[in-house]
Amino acid sequence: MKLHWSPRSPFVRKVMVAAHELGLADRIGTVRTVVGMEQINDALLADNPLNKIPTLVLDDGRAIFDSLVICEYLDEMAGGALFAGDKWEVLTRHALLNGLLDLLILFRHERTREKPAARILFAFGCKTQSALGALRLPPAGRLDIGDITLAVALSYLDFRFDDIDWRGARPELATWHAAFCERPSMVATTVVDA
Amino acid sequence: MKLHWSPRSPFVRKVMVAAHELGLADRIGTVRTVVGMEQINDALLADNPLNKIPTLVLDDGRAIFDSLVICEYLDEMAGGALFAGDKWEVLTRHALLNGLLDLLILFRHERTREKPAARILFAFGCKTQSALGALRLPPAGRLDIGDITLAVALSYLDFRFDDIDWRGARPELATWHAAFCERPSMVATTVVDA
Repeated sequence: MKLHWSPRSPFVRKVMVAAHELGLADRIGTVRTVVGMEQINDALLADNPLNKIPTLVLDDGRAIFDSLVICEYLDEMAGGALFAGDKWEVLTRHALLNGLLDLLILFRHERTREKPAARILFAFGCKTQSALGALRLPPAGRLDIGDITLAVALSYLDFRFDDIDWRGARPELATWHAAFCERPSMVATTVVDA
Repeated sequence: MKLHWSPRSPFVRKVMVAAHELGLADRIGTVRTVVGMEQINDALLADNPLNKIPTLVLDDGRAIFDSLVICEYLDEMAGGALFAGDKWEVLTRHALLNGLLDLLILFRHERTREKPAARILFAFGCKTQSALGALRLPPAGRLDIGDITLAVALSYLDFRFDDIDWRGARPELATWHAAFCERPSMVATTVVDA
């Protein structure tokens, strides 16, 4: 399998953390694929006309996306339990956390515009705080797709939003996140800047 | 069940078309919920901290989102076949079409900014054309979540992007879309401006 990959995409990281947890990481060949809201990658378009990563290409040439579908595919391949539990609770919790990541990507993009719109920045800040406030501490002794997405989202906050002090408001989440970041899957997918 | 709803949201329409096709529309009470990229709706935040519609609230108070999860929930409730067929093909095709809708929402938002960024508009235009070019004509004699999302996306293009002549490039899709729009589920969810 080939994965259109980039080290700083949190959606790619979600897939790679899942792959490591499922024992499938060494079966995935990663291809550095640079994309952006304003940056079209012609080599990617043939596999994903939306120009988005992660995109998984199977050995028979079929492409699978988005990150949720890839994670479900890998989980089924490995006979994993990343989607175990009450289906609607698992999928809605994932949608909340994945939606937070979508929001953060747009938030960062707005911040780096030449002329950010104050009303958009304000609304994005409100939604980020609302989502952070709703995050529940995962139960101990299990790991699912929501936990992975939560850990990746919090690490992305650290990486791109060092002005948002989520730890101050949620010390119990900070403790959970610190422990989660010691997992080999998280260590293996940490960006180390040269 | 209660659905946070708005008549012009294509994601809401997708859910309502699915509900009509599954025979569940009369079991869903719709609540007009106004949201926007810059518009927070406090009544919605309790059910969906991301401030997004559609959000389905079950009779026991549990909330389910996003639109894909709601469609899966309704399909399972009705014993439907909206997700029948090869799982990864169905889900990836849905992700392509749903991603096209995400793109179109951002595209429209960019267009209506005080100072749209030319590079972003250009990239959004490229991705829209790339996605449109990849759309395959659905096989006859069946209906799945991808078909619904395709019809809703094409209708959204007509509604908000009358400068994009998708019919000229894809006459066979235009014929399919015209027939699909005669389904009672599409007629019942058409916006009629006063």
